[in-house]
Amino acid sequence: MRHLISLDDLDAHDIAGLLSTADHMAEVLGRPQPKVPALRTKTVCSLFFEDSTRTRLSFETAAKRLSAETLTFTASSSSVNKGESLRDTVETLAAMGVDVFVVRHKTAGLPLSMTNWCDARVVNAGDGAHQHPTQGLLDAFTLSRALGRGNDLSGVRVAIVGDIRHSRVARSTLRALHVLGASITLVAPASLLPAAFVGADSVPDGWPVGVSHSLDEVIGEIDVLYLLRMQRERMDNAFISSPGEYSAHFGLTDGRLSRMRKGSVLMHPGPMNHGIEVAVDLDSLADHGVANLITQQVTNGIAVRMSVLFTLFGAGSEAIDGQ
Amino acid sequence: MRHLISLDDLDAHDIAGLLSTADHMAEVLGRPQPKVPALRTKTVCSLFFEDSTRTRLSFETAAKRLSAETLTFTASSSSVNKGESLRDTVETLAAMGVDVFVVRHKTAGLPLSMTNWCDARVVNAGDGAHQHPTQGLLDAFTLSRALGRGNDLSGVRVAIVGDIRHSRVARSTLRALHVLGASITLVAPASLLPAAFVGADSVPDGWPVGVSHSLDEVIGEIDVLYLLRMQRERMDNAFISSPGEYSAHFGLTDGRLSRMRKGSVLMHPGPMNHGIEVAVDLDSLADHGVANLITQQVTNGIAVRMSVLFTLFGAGSEAIDGQ
Amino acid sequence: MRHLISLDDLDAHDIAGLLSTADHMAEVLGRPQPKVPALRTKTVCSLFFEDSTRTRLSFETAAKRLSAETLTFTASSSSVNKGESLRDTVETLAAMGVDVFVVRHKTAGLPLSMTNWCDARVVNAGDGAHQHPTQGLLDAFTLSRALGRGNDLSGVRVAIVGDIRHSRVARSTLRALHVLGASITLVAPASLLPAAFVGADSVPDGWPVGVSHSLDEVIGEIDVLYLLRMQRERMDNAFISSPGEYSAHFGLTDGRLSRMRKGSVLMHPGPMNHGIEVAVDLDSLADHGVANLITQQVTNGIAVRMSVLFTLFGAGSEAIDGQ
Repeated sequence: MRHLISLDDLDAHDIAGLLSTADHMAEVLGRPQPKVPALRTKTVCSLFFEDSTRTRLSFETAAKRLSAETLTFTASSSSVNKGESLRDTVETLAAMGVDVFVVRHKTAGLPLSMTNWCDARVVNAGDGAHQHPTQGLLDAFTLSRALGRGNDLSGVRVAIVGDIRHSRVARSTLRALHVLGASITLVAPASLLPAAFVGADSVPDGWPVGVSHSLDEVIGEIDVLYLLRMQRERMDNAFISSPGEYSAHFGLTDGRLSRMRKGSVLMHPGPMNHGIEVAVDLDSLADHGVANLITQQVTNGIAVRMSVLFTLFGAGSEAIDGQ
Repeated sequence: MRHLISLDDLDAHDIAGLLSTADHMAEVLGRPQPKVPALRTKTVCSLFFEDSTRTRLSFETAAKRLSAETLTFTASSSSVNKGESLRDTVETLAAMGVDVFVVRHKTAGLPLSMTNWCDARVVNAGDGAHQHPTQGLLDAFTLSRALGRGNDLSGVRVAIVGDIRHSRVARSTLRALHVLGASITLVAPASLLPAAFVGADSVPDGWPVGVSHSLDEVIGEIDVLYLLRMQRERMDNAFISSPGEYSAHFGLTDGRLSRMRKGSVLMHPGPMNHGIEVAVDLDSLADHGVANLITQQVTNGIAVRMSVLFTLFGAGSEAIDGQ
Repeated sequence: MRHLISLDDLDAHDIAGLLSTADHMAEVLGRPQPKVPALRTKTVCSLFFEDSTRTRLSFETAAKRLSAETLTFTASSSSVNKGESLRDTVETLAAMGVDVFVVRHKTAGLPLSMTNWCDARVVNAGDGAHQHPTQGLLDAFTLSRALGRGNDLSGVRVAIVGDIRHSRVARSTLRALHVLGASITLVAPASLLPAAFVGADSVPDGWPVGVSHSLDEVIGEIDVLYLLRMQRERMDNAFISSPGEYSAHFGLTDGRLSRMRKGSVLMHPGPMNHGIEVAVDLDSLADHGVANLITQQVTNGIAVRMSVLFTLFGAGSEAIDGQ
């Protein structure tokens, strides 16, 4: 693996390999000194043109745990606004010795373009509504480890709920869970389904999913409730008139929680809108036998990103065995 | 000590212990390689919701000298403005493996709340007008070492001058110096004394201080002149009509400098308003036998913050003996 | 060398020494582990009051490759805007243990002033229209190594083209190339030549250069075409009415490229305005036997800045031989 642009580029074997390496990394993170020298000769540069401190710090922490040098380049700190082209910026940073770019940009396809601009490796940390592959991997890792399923999710029933249309998380997570065998239902109003679904009589080609417009219909039949973040800035569109209405139709309410299966789990990519997609007290999940995996998703993000950075350089696993 | 929220939580023994550990740290800082491996397994995250580069860099330098990993999270770089709750931010960072948060926030009590949100340690780096405990410790350390007094300041007469009401520095420094035995007089117009003093006939309970409204009355009788920073943004209040008027009543002027005792010292938490609270040429202090401890306060801030971070983890002092 | 403020302070021997040390550093950067412990006891603080992420990251990467601790202080992250004086900031950071300041500021002469404010070393990373000495050094290094000329550029004909008047790059690069023996022609409209040239009948004293107002006149006779960045914000002045007009007179166009000598080279300090000073496809340079050194300039910036930081501390060269 030279770059990580989209989970569509990876098959089940590739994804299982990354998750297995993440197991090693999780073991490293449990050591008294949670650090290995694997990438001590490498420089990892975060190139974030959209604000996301949590994702950036997760990648940078992962890089540091592998002993890589880290550089941070954010749009606000840069001269990009002053007319320097993005390509010049990338070429300049590569010429300074960057080995891996971790890039987030609002333009779908930008990370892929970058692979043609320089010899550095590129990891997509979110491009427009396209992909956020490490999110998909960390979700697959978190879910499969929580269920004790190894790298096989066959038969696991997942509902991904919310604004599928604008969500790169939905695309990447769906891909990762599907490839490992999970059965996925998208739950959203028609207006928040991807454009390919509009006016279609059946599920479009390339979407290995079921579709429902009613969370109530599926809530009692699933093993995994994956709630997407509702973007408030999209609330003014006609399809959802208010946060309250969204919550009433697609949020996790006390009523819905009481109908969830014992042993089922809740996931969310964060940051959460309390009172909108999550309208229950999270502490009450345990009373219903529902596990909250949200914190584990964050924690596992470090191990999974370590696995990705490590795998880019094709290093043998012996390199993570000692400090 | 699991957290450092307020110096009110510490007694004389605790404070003396922190200052003695700071002596060790100062010795480390004087070595050719000013670094020890004591916290190399720990991650320290600065969480600054108020701008204070000097305090943040002081803590981060202290953490690096102890070989800790450092993460920086500032309000401007974060998604906090976009509706992510502070608690979610803290939980997320803790889930990524943060061991200590160093937090500054305008809300008094926020650092204490954080101790309930996650398992990480919390160091208060300034919360509203409440406390700034490491400032109190570094002031006590600087003063006692400059006077050659060990951890005993009994009999030392200190005037803390200026906007006591809004100053967390005043509260923390007063506490630290008082606990070590110093006699403290607050010098301020009535309107800049804490609310408890308003309309009171005598000094309120819990304030082990004398009070004066006249710097001229006390200037010749003190060993330590501690000037607070006058916040220009509070100048439009009725009590102080202009910087010039403030300086005339409560600033260090040439006239007052000439009345200071030989062997007395000047302290200030920085950054200083030249021409307001300090209206003399600082180079002229030496001519009057007055020592300027301001630079030592900054320098000692590193050693004292190393001591605090080190003490949080209860490590044995042998851990700072070698690289 | 205690500070690096201006190349006017250095003679040919000094500059040659820095370039030879940069050769060692370039060798270090080619190692599997591109890092030496030379400055592991030092703290390097970037103090940038003008936005320049590329220069800042180049210096910080150089410092990290020498194992120095790095601190970043940028105007936007600081309290400088709130009335803290620059001198107080510098004194405060120095008191925290900074060994070297790398400073960029719009005021010519500020880095020199800083040398009087504290004991730390100072490296000028660009002050107003005055100097940008490491740019001059990296240009001299890149050119002499590309031409295989060692530290001797005698007989090499260089045209520096564009806004000489406002360019600190022009001043520093001119100095470095001239000292090593190159023959330099400034090419600019009269209004973009330095003030000393205005109304002068001949080249003013202290400017060891030829002057031309026509790039077409010199383009076929030079070994080095050094294009300066045209600042768009100066475009509204009378002398250059539009980017198109600038490009027509002083840009590298296809017509001019076809007249360049085989074996000649193109240089630019970056970031480039495509379509203005560079109005050709850079990939077409090779077809005309013209080498594009722009990426090498960026890459060599790391080695040259390592050389400067290393030389400030007068360390013996053995310190860079091993990890």
